[in-house]
Amino acid sequence: MTACPCLSRAVATALEEDLGHGDLTAAVCVPESLGASAEIVAKAPGVLAGMAAAAEVARQVDGALRVAALLGDGDGVAPGAIVARVDGLARSVLAFERTALNFLQQLSGVATLTRAFVDRVAGTRAKVVDTRKTVPGLRALQKAAVRSGGGHNHRFGLYDAILIKDNHLRVTGGVANALRRAQAGAPFMARIEIEVTTPEEAELAAELGADVIMLDNMTPEAAGESVARIAGRALTEVSGGVRLDTIRSYAELGVDLISVGALTHSAPALDLSLEIREWRP
Amino acid sequence: MTACPCLSRAVATALEEDLGHGDLTAAVCVPESLGASAEIVAKAPGVLAGMAAAAEVARQVDGALRVAALLGDGDGVAPGAIVARVDGLARSVLAFERTALNFLQQLSGVATLTRAFVDRVAGTRAKVVDTRKTVPGLRALQKAAVRSGGGHNHRFGLYDAILIKDNHLRVTGGVANALRRAQAGAPFMARIEIEVTTPEEAELAAELGADVIMLDNMTPEAAGESVARIAGRALTEVSGGVRLDTIRSYAELGVDLISVGALTHSAPALDLSLEIREWRP
Amino acid sequence: MTACPCLSRAVATALEEDLGHGDLTAAVCVPESLGASAEIVAKAPGVLAGMAAAAEVARQVDGALRVAALLGDGDGVAPGAIVARVDGLARSVLAFERTALNFLQQLSGVATLTRAFVDRVAGTRAKVVDTRKTVPGLRALQKAAVRSGGGHNHRFGLYDAILIKDNHLRVTGGVANALRRAQAGAPFMARIEIEVTTPEEAELAAELGADVIMLDNMTPEAAGESVARIAGRALTEVSGGVRLDTIRSYAELGVDLISVGALTHSAPALDLSLEIREWRP
Amino acid sequence: MTACPCLSRAVATALEEDLGHGDLTAAVCVPESLGASAEIVAKAPGVLAGMAAAAEVARQVDGALRVAALLGDGDGVAPGAIVARVDGLARSVLAFERTALNFLQQLSGVATLTRAFVDRVAGTRAKVVDTRKTVPGLRALQKAAVRSGGGHNHRFGLYDAILIKDNHLRVTGGVANALRRAQAGAPFMARIEIEVTTPEEAELAAELGADVIMLDNMTPEAAGESVARIAGRALTEVSGGVRLDTIRSYAELGVDLISVGALTHSAPALDLSLEIREWRP
Amino acid sequence: MTACPCLSRAVATALEEDLGHGDLTAAVCVPESLGASAEIVAKAPGVLAGMAAAAEVARQVDGALRVAALLGDGDGVAPGAIVARVDGLARSVLAFERTALNFLQQLSGVATLTRAFVDRVAGTRAKVVDTRKTVPGLRALQKAAVRSGGGHNHRFGLYDAILIKDNHLRVTGGVANALRRAQAGAPFMARIEIEVTTPEEAELAAELGADVIMLDNMTPEAAGESVARIAGRALTEVSGGVRLDTIRSYAELGVDLISVGALTHSAPALDLSLEIREWRP
Amino acid sequence: MTACPCLSRAVATALEEDLGHGDLTAAVCVPESLGASAEIVAKAPGVLAGMAAAAEVARQVDGALRVAALLGDGDGVAPGAIVARVDGLARSVLAFERTALNFLQQLSGVATLTRAFVDRVAGTRAKVVDTRKTVPGLRALQKAAVRSGGGHNHRFGLYDAILIKDNHLRVTGGVANALRRAQAGAPFMARIEIEVTTPEEAELAAELGADVIMLDNMTPEAAGESVARIAGRALTEVSGGVRLDTIRSYAELGVDLISVGALTHSAPALDLSLEIREWRP
Repeated sequence: MTACPCLSRAVATALEEDLGHGDLTAAVCVPESLGASAEIVAKAPGVLAGMAAAAEVARQVDGALRVAALLGDGDGVAPGAIVARVDGLARSVLAFERTALNFLQQLSGVATLTRAFVDRVAGTRAKVVDTRKTVPGLRALQKAAVRSGGGHNHRFGLYDAILIKDNHLRVTGGVANALRRAQAGAPFMARIEIEVTTPEEAELAAELGADVIMLDNMTPEAAGESVARIAGRALTEVSGGVRLDTIRSYAELGVDLISVGALTHSAPALDLSLEIREWRP
Repeated sequence: MTACPCLSRAVATALEEDLGHGDLTAAVCVPESLGASAEIVAKAPGVLAGMAAAAEVARQVDGALRVAALLGDGDGVAPGAIVARVDGLARSVLAFERTALNFLQQLSGVATLTRAFVDRVAGTRAKVVDTRKTVPGLRALQKAAVRSGGGHNHRFGLYDAILIKDNHLRVTGGVANALRRAQAGAPFMARIEIEVTTPEEAELAAELGADVIMLDNMTPEAAGESVARIAGRALTEVSGGVRLDTIRSYAELGVDLISVGALTHSAPALDLSLEIREWRP
Repeated sequence: MTACPCLSRAVATALEEDLGHGDLTAAVCVPESLGASAEIVAKAPGVLAGMAAAAEVARQVDGALRVAALLGDGDGVAPGAIVARVDGLARSVLAFERTALNFLQQLSGVATLTRAFVDRVAGTRAKVVDTRKTVPGLRALQKAAVRSGGGHNHRFGLYDAILIKDNHLRVTGGVANALRRAQAGAPFMARIEIEVTTPEEAELAAELGADVIMLDNMTPEAAGESVARIAGRALTEVSGGVRLDTIRSYAELGVDLISVGALTHSAPALDLSLEIREWRP
Repeated sequence: MTACPCLSRAVATALEEDLGHGDLTAAVCVPESLGASAEIVAKAPGVLAGMAAAAEVARQVDGALRVAALLGDGDGVAPGAIVARVDGLARSVLAFERTALNFLQQLSGVATLTRAFVDRVAGTRAKVVDTRKTVPGLRALQKAAVRSGGGHNHRFGLYDAILIKDNHLRVTGGVANALRRAQAGAPFMARIEIEVTTPEEAELAAELGADVIMLDNMTPEAAGESVARIAGRALTEVSGGVRLDTIRSYAELGVDLISVGALTHSAPALDLSLEIREWRP
Repeated sequence: MTACPCLSRAVATALEEDLGHGDLTAAVCVPESLGASAEIVAKAPGVLAGMAAAAEVARQVDGALRVAALLGDGDGVAPGAIVARVDGLARSVLAFERTALNFLQQLSGVATLTRAFVDRVAGTRAKVVDTRKTVPGLRALQKAAVRSGGGHNHRFGLYDAILIKDNHLRVTGGVANALRRAQAGAPFMARIEIEVTTPEEAELAAELGADVIMLDNMTPEAAGESVARIAGRALTEVSGGVRLDTIRSYAELGVDLISVGALTHSAPALDLSLEIREWRP
Repeated sequence: MTACPCLSRAVATALEEDLGHGDLTAAVCVPESLGASAEIVAKAPGVLAGMAAAAEVARQVDGALRVAALLGDGDGVAPGAIVARVDGLARSVLAFERTALNFLQQLSGVATLTRAFVDRVAGTRAKVVDTRKTVPGLRALQKAAVRSGGGHNHRFGLYDAILIKDNHLRVTGGVANALRRAQAGAPFMARIEIEVTTPEEAELAAELGADVIMLDNMTPEAAGESVARIAGRALTEVSGGVRLDTIRSYAELGVDLISVGALTHSAPALDLSLEIREWRP
């Protein structure tokens, strides 16, 4: 598998914080040569994500530990579903357990919540997209989990696209000024998005050639009028406090994108557990 | 302030993932020498945590950035409350913004959820405690946030205490065997906890001298009977699927500890924002 | 100054490889408390770049070392020009010397070569842009140096834009197929560029909606015909073996971008030296 | 192969800067399971170097990627020569491509330029040697490339030999003083070299027992007189602005060493490319 | 084998400091393809420790190097005993040699000294335990070596148990105050130990419920009286300047634990060497 | 002070292993704002070393902690001598305490043992030198401590000098062969040392031009004969099992160097403690 440099570092950090100088319980309760076979089992319904992280945990804990995936990122799981089988030294299985589950439960939580939002906009043109409101240290993994849930990624950081927001608008003196500066100075491979708060600003941004226009904290009415005024000249993104019970009203306006910070900052974990099924001296 | 080694690494990783090779938007919209004053503002009620992380973000982004904290970890916030003022180069304020907020929103979310659980057990002897079900890379920071919310910490990792759980019990052949092995081999500074699933096992564990007995996934009735049989010979911990609406029924049984994985794996973020209030060439 | 995470790591690596366990010569020839004032002097004409790296070298070598910049990135220098003054312990000045100069000479070399290409296209619409053919470990710094020389940046890596090249075209079966797949799957904030080798392919790519079309290794005639067929529907980029003596013939065709790998892979260093001017016990 | 610790870090840094959070183009254009066979091909004549770096790139990108070297460091290549075959997942081949080529083109550039200088001094006793004027982060790799080109290495850093240069001479009060201090204080395993600017100084340094004497920026005449006065009592090194068209005039004076900073700070890259030849679902 | 994160970092650091940019001697004396078989041989009697570190050195130096352990941690060795056989490229064997031996000699020294202390207390209830007075960077490895020598581990750091010492007692105002604060605030999984200097303080600490009481720098008489007054209500630890010739007088008092800083800060190295026995082109 | 890159890493590692996620005892016993003044006090006679490491520990623990050194590396200390005063937050003083002392006690132990050997050879030409038998991770710091004790440094690693030892001699076929290969291939700035076991080999090595000749495990008689045969043509080094009670018999033979592995692998720690003298709310 093609490696992602961010993965090995995130896993190493997580293992250090759980294992430290060693597993005291296994040292006293589990013979060094005991072998074990275990299953990772879903205990709640949801969408799976993070299987590459779990594999990397195994690789770092013990090169001889075997993880056989029965399901993959993006697969739906029901309670009781067996996600993977893990086989190796019992001490290695136990060192793997919590760190692997912590990645899987966090990232599957993101995928599951994303899927819920995506399901609500079915049949519309709207895509559900993420934000930079991620858990520190897990951005790339969370954004992959959003894709596993059927969502799409907004920019990854400050470095890969231009997004002019409220604080930029204040210091530059408004939409027209900020947009002209960005168009003059932006790298040619970078798209430019700008946040607007009224249909008038939305129209102005479209006229000036913004690639994407973010309709920030608008009512469905204002958002609808903005979409009409933009008239296909730019992609439209609804942003700000969108919830499961409100997303459809925006999606039906014909917007292209609806961003939801909660996908990555407030997704409840998916409940998973690891159960040792067999062991052998 | 006495530094925690884990903090500087977590912040460096988070800044790398957000800043990468630089902020494209600030480069085109914000003059290099522009100064700015900003406020971090709460947009929802909750309990604050993570202020040391925010200060470290400032330090790493720009040694000349000043963060003046108006509130501290553990303080309650109402919507509109000003948490801190930030002053320095506008580009530095903007580079600080998202990463600092991501730490604050995550950790304040943990403190806020902890406080809600703690409030439910008021007047009982029960302490609300965390687990190892933490977000990878943030364990020490999340556990500090649990304390800010009025909760208490369980062990930090596999390395600092002994906790005999279901998987250990399977491979060792049960409570008595596992406990004896642990007592024979444990470092003398490590406490020993064991998970039990019936009142009979609880009584056995107490007789054999366990320091802490975890009543795993018991009904309130079974937990109550276990507490009675343990009869003060060990600390008692209720564990497994405890929710805000069920915690009090356990707390009133006289248990010492109630652990809640959700504190760290499923806390919704506390909504916070950074607003630039003034700027100067 | 707003810090770039990549800078501190590159400087730390460079200092480790030059200082190792310490400077043997200074230890025997230079008293520990001797102070010194030095100048960084240009010994050839060119364009300066890398001043932030030099400042970071000083910071890491000795927090008490002072670097006063007389010139900045993007400034032209003539032989004899004083670039900066450095003041502090003589041992610190000497530990600073080579590593700081190595950054400055490499990055100023990039800026100087870029300026030469930029000067050749004066009066045309063409921008000189860089590539991913950079020196390992120095990409962000070299790309900043390209900007200091008046050039523009292409994408920074595989992660921030889509560029369909010859190897992708082979495995996907050609321009139309590849472009459609990219348009269906690309993140909405990512621009799409595609490489073509004939005017016919160029026209097809424009019709299908590519954002940028790379005219790969075309003669000026073929490139001119491609520009005509694209007819402003996409940005055009000339790529492949462009030299100082051939760039103008492409620029006059009306192309938007001319990429030159040599800017970052083959720029000769700008000659600079550090001279101690005064010293004091 | 015996690992060099510096190699794995340099490759990891380079991969992080190119891959970041992943390859957007491959993700949309190249199926995950597609296999590919590719060749690394020389597009210009030169001398190869950096094959261990390319192998390390493969190892870090994907443990299952196979690189079969057809040529090795120090081998001459003609345009069209196949340097290596690469086989594995197409996505892994593409992630390998640019970073591996960037190492190979930089290091082969160094080897190629070194060989050109070495060829000019054929038949004399003079060795072509490098300096500390290297590209930050690549010193050990560039110095290995110098050896691949037939050159020799000067000291690696400030830590492994003593070299008294102009700045040291100023603060110590001249050749005699500096040399005596060095001889009194130097570690016994460290050789001592000193820079001189006149034949008189050269003679003095030889009398005082310097191991190596650097004739700094001398005309061939002055260098010749210095060699005569030193009379074999020390190794002689010509240094300062030596070019391909001037090196022979120095070499024929009977000097032992001629150092050329350009080998590592100004070597143009050797043109190489990677071509996918076959692919399979 | 289940990996310990601290091991790979300690070995990487040690290899960097010994190998640097490469082995100059092997490069000139040992052909690249020469194979070799070597033995690690004990040259003095002692107790072995550090075999996992030696294996990790081999893994990092060259994945193809084979280390076959004939003895393991905790085994006694006599002069001439063969500890392990090492097989692979001669250059890899030589790069492995010194770093592997440095780990083995340091850690076996710790195990050997520990065993000597343990032997002196044979037949008593006293356990020999270590302290935090360890060699910087090697704490976890040294503490494992103490176990290999038959000793037991005290806490690993400031983070995994509470130990109230002289400096804490000063600032809190004495045993009763400090103990009450600790009992009120300690994590429930952390044991509490307190240092006392008189039998009266020892009795007080026992009454107040300390888990472990450290009898600091007491004469055997005072320690004996303390043990009597504690009367089994807490574990007792003798600490302070205990030597091989004095330990038994304390052990016979019936104390539970005797801590010896010298185990980790002053253990002489065990003499070991690596001998190449066969080589092959 | 000019920074040594190795120092900050060694200190960071040591602090991580002692502090981990925080100091449990200080958290419960020491108020956050309590200030304290402390002294580092010698409890045994010896030679001080490691003061830069202690300063770096302070810097990393808390930038506001002040360490005022009253004595410096190389100074002799008597029991009761005050080495330094430390002032700041009490929690920071306590976090500093053990890690700073661990560096000081280890490195002062090395300096103290070195001084003892140096004193024994007073009045002879012999220098006491160290080896590569160092504690993993501390090589540069230990070698500086050897200098503080009046000793001299041998090479730092495999990378900075050539030393042909028994294993090289076996695979190359003896002294003459190995030496010729080394002379042909060595970097010109690297000295060449060779190990010999008989006076005949010593004479041969001198004739062939070795820079330094190591007399390995020779009796004083054989060493004396070797020195006579070498006759000043090379530096002479006695090596192998030299002890305090035997060093003078070698020194009086007129050898230049006597290397002692015990300086760095078996030096007992110097006893030092930190005492809080005053505190203030």
